[in-house]
Amino acid sequence: MPSYSPPVRDMKFLLHEVLDIEQYGDLPKFSEAPRDLADAILDEAAKFAEGVLQPLNQVGDQQGCVRHDDASVTTPPGFKDAFDQFVENGWPLLGAEAEFGGQDLPSVLGIAVSEMMSTANTAFAMYPGLTRGAVEAILAGGTPEQKEKYLHKMTSCEWGGTMNLTEPHCGTDLGLLKTRAVPQADGTYKISGQKIFISSGEHDLTDNIIHMVLARIEGAPSGTKGISLFIVPKVMVNDDGSLGERNGVSCGSIEHKMGIHGNSTCTMNFDDAKGYLIGEENKGLRLMFVMMNAARLGTGMQGLCQSEASYQNAVAYAKERIQGRSLTGPKNADGPADPIIVHPDVRRMLLESKSVTEGCRAFLYWTALHGDLEELSPDEKVREKGSDYMALLTPVIKAYLTDRGYHNATNAQQIYGGHGYIEEWGMSQFVRDARIGMIYEGANGVQALDLVGRKLAMHGGRPIMTFIGELDAFIAENGDDADLKPFIDGLGAARGDLNTATTWLMENSLSNFDNAGAASHEFLHLFALTALSYMWARMAKIALAKAGKEPFYATKIKTGAFFLSHVLPATALHLGKIEAGAENLMALDESEF
Amino acid sequence: MPSYSPPVRDMKFLLHEVLDIEQYGDLPKFSEAPRDLADAILDEAAKFAEGVLQPLNQVGDQQGCVRHDDASVTTPPGFKDAFDQFVENGWPLLGAEAEFGGQDLPSVLGIAVSEMMSTANTAFAMYPGLTRGAVEAILAGGTPEQKEKYLHKMTSCEWGGTMNLTEPHCGTDLGLLKTRAVPQADGTYKISGQKIFISSGEHDLTDNIIHMVLARIEGAPSGTKGISLFIVPKVMVNDDGSLGERNGVSCGSIEHKMGIHGNSTCTMNFDDAKGYLIGEENKGLRLMFVMMNAARLGTGMQGLCQSEASYQNAVAYAKERIQGRSLTGPKNADGPADPIIVHPDVRRMLLESKSVTEGCRAFLYWTALHGDLEELSPDEKVREKGSDYMALLTPVIKAYLTDRGYHNATNAQQIYGGHGYIEEWGMSQFVRDARIGMIYEGANGVQALDLVGRKLAMHGGRPIMTFIGELDAFIAENGDDADLKPFIDGLGAARGDLNTATTWLMENSLSNFDNAGAASHEFLHLFALTALSYMWARMAKIALAKAGKEPFYATKIKTGAFFLSHVLPATALHLGKIEAGAENLMALDESEF
Repeated sequence: MPSYSPPVRDMKFLLHEVLDIEQYGDLPKFSEAPRDLADAILDEAAKFAEGVLQPLNQVGDQQGCVRHDDASVTTPPGFKDAFDQFVENGWPLLGAEAEFGGQDLPSVLGIAVSEMMSTANTAFAMYPGLTRGAVEAILAGGTPEQKEKYLHKMTSCEWGGTMNLTEPHCGTDLGLLKTRAVPQADGTYKISGQKIFISSGEHDLTDNIIHMVLARIEGAPSGTKGISLFIVPKVMVNDDGSLGERNGVSCGSIEHKMGIHGNSTCTMNFDDAKGYLIGEENKGLRLMFVMMNAARLGTGMQGLCQSEASYQNAVAYAKERIQGRSLTGPKNADGPADPIIVHPDVRRMLLESKSVTEGCRAFLYWTALHGDLEELSPDEKVREKGSDYMALLTPVIKAYLTDRGYHNATNAQQIYGGHGYIEEWGMSQFVRDARIGMIYEGANGVQALDLVGRKLAMHGGRPIMTFIGELDAFIAENGDDADLKPFIDGLGAARGDLNTATTWLMENSLSNFDNAGAASHEFLHLFALTALSYMWARMAKIALAKAGKEPFYATKIKTGAFFLSHVLPATALHLGKIEAGAENLMALDESEF
Repeated sequence: MPSYSPPVRDMKFLLHEVLDIEQYGDLPKFSEAPRDLADAILDEAAKFAEGVLQPLNQVGDQQGCVRHDDASVTTPPGFKDAFDQFVENGWPLLGAEAEFGGQDLPSVLGIAVSEMMSTANTAFAMYPGLTRGAVEAILAGGTPEQKEKYLHKMTSCEWGGTMNLTEPHCGTDLGLLKTRAVPQADGTYKISGQKIFISSGEHDLTDNIIHMVLARIEGAPSGTKGISLFIVPKVMVNDDGSLGERNGVSCGSIEHKMGIHGNSTCTMNFDDAKGYLIGEENKGLRLMFVMMNAARLGTGMQGLCQSEASYQNAVAYAKERIQGRSLTGPKNADGPADPIIVHPDVRRMLLESKSVTEGCRAFLYWTALHGDLEELSPDEKVREKGSDYMALLTPVIKAYLTDRGYHNATNAQQIYGGHGYIEEWGMSQFVRDARIGMIYEGANGVQALDLVGRKLAMHGGRPIMTFIGELDAFIAENGDDADLKPFIDGLGAARGDLNTATTWLMENSLSNFDNAGAASHEFLHLFALTALSYMWARMAKIALAKAGKEPFYATKIKTGAFFLSHVLPATALHLGKIEAGAENLMALDESEF
């Protein structure tokens, strides 16, 4: 039976030491979260995640969700009770707006809390996660009346929320969608069509579910310019806030998925369901992208979560499993064999996971902090940089963290040998649950294309230039630090490869857009490794300064050293593949595959 | 619903053009398989694989095997009928010994047939696959009476066979095993203990199952020096060949696995089961390794199979799925969108799979050919080289092909987007089925250690020297071929990295064995890439010579060009990680993970 012990020490290291969020104590939101409160929240969240959510993770996988003949859906045993506690304890309100009952804490703190919940039980955490996405869309585009009507109950998760985008014939290309919205005399719309892959589409956790639905108003232009967004409540909400009759939306079936069985992923049927336009007619995609962008950082986080969860269990197993002997002589001479953690190749897999996971956590929190600064800083330049970074880094976080989450979970499973393949041991679930992160909220190839096709060029390249400039400043500032030299050298080399790749793209993409597409996956990974090397340099700087104070710091430096020698060198390979261009990719005719 | 069309053209290209097996027409076995017969066998096998086995692949996954209260096991619907056809058509006899009713064909032909069966339905193909492993052990260690008693029925697959090694507390380290064998007055043994993860352990496909069981004879030394191998029939076999009473061996449960659900992987309980010693007392491991070694090529092949199957379906989907537009302007202007195969990043995933799969197929068949030559050549040097190569290449084939099979299946699943995560589409099954190949028959880390720890040093390094010498000869021979130059250059660069890595290992492993362990995974992948670059150079040489004759050859050259630009360059990264040594892997104390 797998376990999870939230890495609170590492989280506090990042928040207080590396990012030093106390320096923003004068900003709104941050002023509400002084260090002692922040720490108390982290400690309590850890208890809830470990004590309440994690024990339900495997149950959720094995029992899944059940759709009944009346189209209602029951979540796995224990989920409803845990969800009630989750709501009663006010966890969903942490980062929510004060206007709607929230505590209005900074998202850099919120993401640490989310990480714990989602590591303990990803399928469970998706219910509030999707609800939060729907909240963001209503905040961005709703009328004051709509906000008042829905957001109080949604920020608290008394009601759930969903995102209804995908249809059988369209996912990435939403311009193809067919769901119809017919205007009614009272200003509402009748929505009809079928949506698939709807996470948390129907369940027994909340009294109501507010569906955010993309549809095409009768007569609207075809393609992406004719798509509108609608609020479609599962149960109609009366003007006094009480619940009315059931709306014409129902769960047609629960999808048979490879993983995240604890989340009810549904096909949703809309039969003349009453819908309320949110935002402007035919401008629905813009609002949906507000939700998507928020969701993408959260999806990246899920990769981190599976990485952490699977790593912790692999470590425990590698210490317990007695099998064979160390190559350099018995390490457990009194026992019948040594624990397998003595083997370099087992350590290779563990350290790949540990060093990348810790680097990714820093990268994620640092990015989330820029989201806070974009919103809260009084300094226009800081807000601009925050906005630039959020745009630039979101696709990288989404794709790299989920790619790595799957890779690391696979390695962790490998450490279990045959037991890793047997479901009772729980390692297969981490792999299966991790797999979806690379696919949903925009497949990772789409993220890579977003990065090279749009984000690099935005504002005349300002975001990437600012990013490289920040690396240069750090290198210049710390170039004389002898202890930090390996980290500065590693960062410098990665920065060089990234810069070369960026220049290559500028010079070769305009003449042939396929060069950008061909480079996109490699560029995203090169970018992420460079960002991680920056994170590792910053973490190592703090850890070196405090090396004698706590074993934690010495371990951090050793972990970073492994990152430098065994993970970071891949930047050169990515650069080489970028420079190889699109020619060999495009040479084959379709019929030759 | 996934499909499979066996790549018979590619198989014939390898057998007849690249490996030119007709040149061995004077050798035993080869003389029984002239080209027209070989081709007819391939064509018939393709029909059987595609028509009979593949349609049962998804059924096997979804319905799995069922254990009944009486401990009997039913295979998935359709398996029994297909198995009967498989036996009646004589497929298991193709490569079997004439003495026991077999057709005695070379294994290089047999492996092509096996590839088709296993690509169509891996879980099904494991039943005869394990039986063949048991046959090999009896051939290697059985008395004439034992061979006569069991092998006729086993070579034909009228009876099944299994390998019983693993116990709950021991897998890789068989020295820890506890299953007991108590000598009886009649020369037999009473076997008691529990085995786990026993593939094909109990099923309804055959009248009898001959279990090969590792156990420790009472009073035998502890560790690996006290392990013996036993024949334990499910149903006792009378001296006249008829079946007698049930033996004390039964299926305790069916394991809940991540994949290969169509194969009944069982926990097996031995309760005073009657067993017959095979080979010498306490020398059981040696015999078991005969089985294991044969099985390891077969396991590597399974990686190739999942790669091929998932690739074919991903190609079909990428051509059909209409979504978005090409970056360089519409390619399907009359339709609402372009097929996703227009996107470079989709092609990247497809071509990675295609180029590696075709390279791996060549590598596997070439290795199998050396197995034939080891056995059949009249030339002692050729036999020696065959033996050296089988030893050297088997761990590489096993680990690299399965690592790549999983990676490629994952990429193929990715191309399906959200549908890839839904079980009905079949892509998840390829990934889940592929996952086991990296684990069983010796986890891939164990293969890597076998390669660097034993195979490199055997016979004073003769196998690796012979291998590098063969590459050098090919480079020298073809250095003036301008058309082939990119392939020769790629091979030369890879060969250089391999040679540097080998020298580094020789210089740094003896002083610190952990350097070998730390390098092992990287070395195995570097070795495999070098071997694949040799295979691609050989394939390209033929294809260039025949380029105008058939579109097949032009495609082959383009696919090889992608391999050179986008896959092969990873050798430098592997070398860099090898040269980084063990230090950063071993620096952390256990408590620091």
